[in-house]
Amino acid sequence: MTRHDALLKDLGLDVELHSRIIDSIDRNFRKTVLAQANRPARMAYFDGVIHGAHDERVREIVDRRAAGDKFIGTFCIYVPEELVLALGAIPVALCGGTSLSIPYAEKMFPRDICPLVKSTLGLALSNTCPYGPIEDLAVGETTCDAKKKTWDILSKGGDFHVLEVPQKKGPRDRELWHEEVIQFKVRLEELTGRTLEPERLAQAVCLMNRKRRALARLNAFRKEANPPVSGLDALVVMQGALLDDTLRFTESLEALNDELGDRVRRGVGAASGRPKRIMVSGCPSVMGNWKLHHLVESAGALVVCDETCTGERYFGNLVEETDGGLDAQVAAIAARYLKIDCSCFSPNDERLESVVRLARERRVDGVIQYVLQYCHTYNIEAIAVAGALREAGVPSLKIVTDYSEEDTGQLRIRVDAFLEGLGL
Amino acid sequence: MTRHDALLKDLGLDVELHSRIIDSIDRNFRKTVLAQANRPARMAYFDGVIHGAHDERVREIVDRRAAGDKFIGTFCIYVPEELVLALGAIPVALCGGTSLSIPYAEKMFPRDICPLVKSTLGLALSNTCPYGPIEDLAVGETTCDAKKKTWDILSKGGDFHVLEVPQKKGPRDRELWHEEVIQFKVRLEELTGRTLEPERLAQAVCLMNRKRRALARLNAFRKEANPPVSGLDALVVMQGALLDDTLRFTESLEALNDELGDRVRRGVGAASGRPKRIMVSGCPSVMGNWKLHHLVESAGALVVCDETCTGERYFGNLVEETDGGLDAQVAAIAARYLKIDCSCFSPNDERLESVVRLARERRVDGVIQYVLQYCHTYNIEAIAVAGALREAGVPSLKIVTDYSEEDTGQLRIRVDAFLEGLGL
Repeated sequence: MTRHDALLKDLGLDVELHSRIIDSIDRNFRKTVLAQANRPARMAYFDGVIHGAHDERVREIVDRRAAGDKFIGTFCIYVPEELVLALGAIPVALCGGTSLSIPYAEKMFPRDICPLVKSTLGLALSNTCPYGPIEDLAVGETTCDAKKKTWDILSKGGDFHVLEVPQKKGPRDRELWHEEVIQFKVRLEELTGRTLEPERLAQAVCLMNRKRRALARLNAFRKEANPPVSGLDALVVMQGALLDDTLRFTESLEALNDELGDRVRRGVGAASGRPKRIMVSGCPSVMGNWKLHHLVESAGALVVCDETCTGERYFGNLVEETDGGLDAQVAAIAARYLKIDCSCFSPNDERLESVVRLARERRVDGVIQYVLQYCHTYNIEAIAVAGALREAGVPSLKIVTDYSEEDTGQLRIRVDAFLEGLGL
Repeated sequence: MTRHDALLKDLGLDVELHSRIIDSIDRNFRKTVLAQANRPARMAYFDGVIHGAHDERVREIVDRRAAGDKFIGTFCIYVPEELVLALGAIPVALCGGTSLSIPYAEKMFPRDICPLVKSTLGLALSNTCPYGPIEDLAVGETTCDAKKKTWDILSKGGDFHVLEVPQKKGPRDRELWHEEVIQFKVRLEELTGRTLEPERLAQAVCLMNRKRRALARLNAFRKEANPPVSGLDALVVMQGALLDDTLRFTESLEALNDELGDRVRRGVGAASGRPKRIMVSGCPSVMGNWKLHHLVESAGALVVCDETCTGERYFGNLVEETDGGLDAQVAAIAARYLKIDCSCFSPNDERLESVVRLARERRVDGVIQYVLQYCHTYNIEAIAVAGALREAGVPSLKIVTDYSEEDTGQLRIRVDAFLEGLGL
C-alpha cells in the first residue's frame, strides 16, 4: 500500500474503487490534455493540481485541519470564497466530473438528472470522495431543482449549509441574498470559532480579486489571432482554480501568464495556422470532464472563450475593495456574487448581452452551447441565447450530452459539420 | 361552421387543429371518466365543466370582458385567487393536459421537459388555446426550473407577471413572498383600474374558503370504507375547480356533496366490494390527463386521496378571515399560500409529514408516487417520501410517465403487480 493509499484508508475510503476512478480520470487526462502538442511549460503546475486533487491536496488539507483550520466543501461558484478564506478556512469545489461514480448515485437516485449532480452524489455515496470524511461543512445552494433537492438528501449526512440564491434580481432578492451572505458569515464564524476581522477580509478580497484578474488576463490572451493557450489548457487552469490553494494558484497562474505573454511576442500559438475560433457557452466542465473541449480542438478548431461557471462566470466580476468597514465589505461581496448571470435567474437578459459581447470581443466564428443532459435552465435558455447570437450574426450549435463516451462518435460528426458550416 | 367554431375563428385560433385536440380530449374523457359505472348523478355538472372548458366557459369570459372585467390566466395553485376575484377579474388555470399539443412545443423547445409544461406551451404556440387571445394577464411563478425559464419565452408575447415563490420558508422568504403578493395586488389594480376594497376582499376570501371547504368535504367522503365517489370523479371535480366560475362551482359541489352524503347513508359506493385504497402523491393531473387514475381504478383499486396540486395542495389550508383591515387580509393570504408544500421547497419536511398523515387518515393500502417525466423536484423528493412511508409501514410505488399512451401497457403491469403485492 502506497503512502497515498494509506491516507485514503485512514479516511475510511473505498481505496480499491477510488483508485479505479482516479485511474480512469488519469487515462482521460492523458488522452486529452496531455496529448496536446506544444503546451506552455508552466502548464505543468496545473497538470499537477489535477493530479494532486485526490492526493497532495487532500494531505495538505488534513495537515491544515490538524493545525486548527476548517475545510469547506462547495458545489457552486455562488459560495463567497472571500468569507471562507478570511476565516482561515479552505474552500474546495466538490463537483464530480467523472462518469464512473454515476452508477452509485443511480442506485437510489433518478437517472434523468444531470451528470454533474449524479457524479457528485455518486462520489459521496460510493465512499470515494476523499474530501467527504474531512469536510467540516458542505455548502449547497438553490441554483437548480436537481441540486436543491439533492441537498435534502446530503444534508442528512452531516454539517450542511444551504445558501438560498434567489430567482430574480429585484430589490427584495438583493436583500434576501445579502442576508444569506450574512448568515453564511455567522455560520462560518461559529464553525471556525473565529471572528471575521475587517483587515483579514480586506486581504481575502484583495487575494480573490488578484486571482480573478489573473484568470481574466489568461483569458485575454485568448483574444489573440493565434492564442498562446489552448481551450483545453485554459479549462485545466479553471478547474484548478476551484481546487487549489488560492495564493499558490494565483502565483502559478501569474507565472503562466508571463510565459503566455512571451509566447505571444514570439508568435507561438496553441494551434497551427488560423484555427476556427469557438466559444463554449452554458454548463461547467469540472475536473474529470474534458469531453467537449477535446472534441472541438481535436477537430482542428480552438476554444477561445468559456462562457460558463468554469470560465467567465467565475472570474467575470471583482469585489469592490471598500474601506467602509465590515458591513460594507460584506455588502460588496453580496453584490459581486449576485452579478453572476447563471441561467437560474428569470429573466436573465444580462447573460444574453454577455454572450454577444464575449462573442464579439473574442472574435469567435461560432458558439457551441454546452448543455449537461437534464439541465433544464441552460437547456431552455439556449433558445434565447441562440436567438441573440443569430441577431448578432454568430452561428451556434447546441450540444446536450452527459459524461459518457457513448455519444462521442455522433457528437464528433455534429461538431465537424458545424465547423465546416462556419465556412472560413 | 358551428356557433362555437365561429367564436374560435373570431379569436384567431387554428380551428381545425383545435377541434382535433378537443376531439382527442373528449375521446379520452369518454374512455375513462364516462366509462365508469354507477356515477353520482350530479357529476353531470362537472362533466359539463370539462366539456365546456373550451366552449361555454370561453364564451362566458368573452362576455364578462365585454362588460369590463379582466381575465387572468394562471399556471399554478400558488396564484392567490382571492385577489383576482376581489377585483372582479376571472382566474382560469391554463395548464395543458393533452399530448396532442406537445409536438408544437418540441419544434423549438427541449424534449426532455415535463409534459405539463410542453403541453401548455404547445397550446400557446399552435394557436389552439382559446384563452390565449382573451387573456389580459398571464401569471407565472418560479416553482420549478422548467416553468421559470418558460416564462422567459412566453413573457415576450404579451402581458405576463411572474410571482417569485421562494425556495425556503425562513423569515426572509416569508417577507419576500408577502411582498410578491402585495406587488401582484398592485399589478391587478393597475390592470383592472379598480382599487382593492377590504369588503370585496373579505367576500372573496370567504368564497374561496367556502370552495376549499366544499372540496375538503368531498375528500372526506373518500375516507369511507366504501367511498361514494371514485378517484377519477374526484379528479374531474378538482380539474373543474381550476377552470370554472368560483361561486357556481362551489354551489354545484355542495349539491354533489349532499348527494354523496346520501349515497353513504344508502351504502352506495363507487366500487363494488372492498377495493384496495390508493393514494396518489406528487405531480398534478390537469384537464385532459386521467391516465393514472384510470389505470389504478380500471385495475379494481380506488384512488382515495390525491396528495397533489389537483388535490390536497389546492384546498388543504384556508385563509384566515381577519377584520384587521386590508394589510392584515393580504398578509393572511400570503401566509396561506406559503403553507403549500410543493416540492420546490428545500427542505420540505412538511410534505413528508403530510403524506404520512394523509395515508393514515384515509387508511390507504398503498401510495403511488406520480412523477411527470423530467419533474426533478418531485422525482428526487420521491426518495424521501418513499422513506417516510416505509417507516410508517405504507408500501409505495413510483411511476414516472408522460401524457403519451405508449407506456400504458408497461404501467398497467407495474400497477397490477403493486396492487397484488399489497396482499389484501
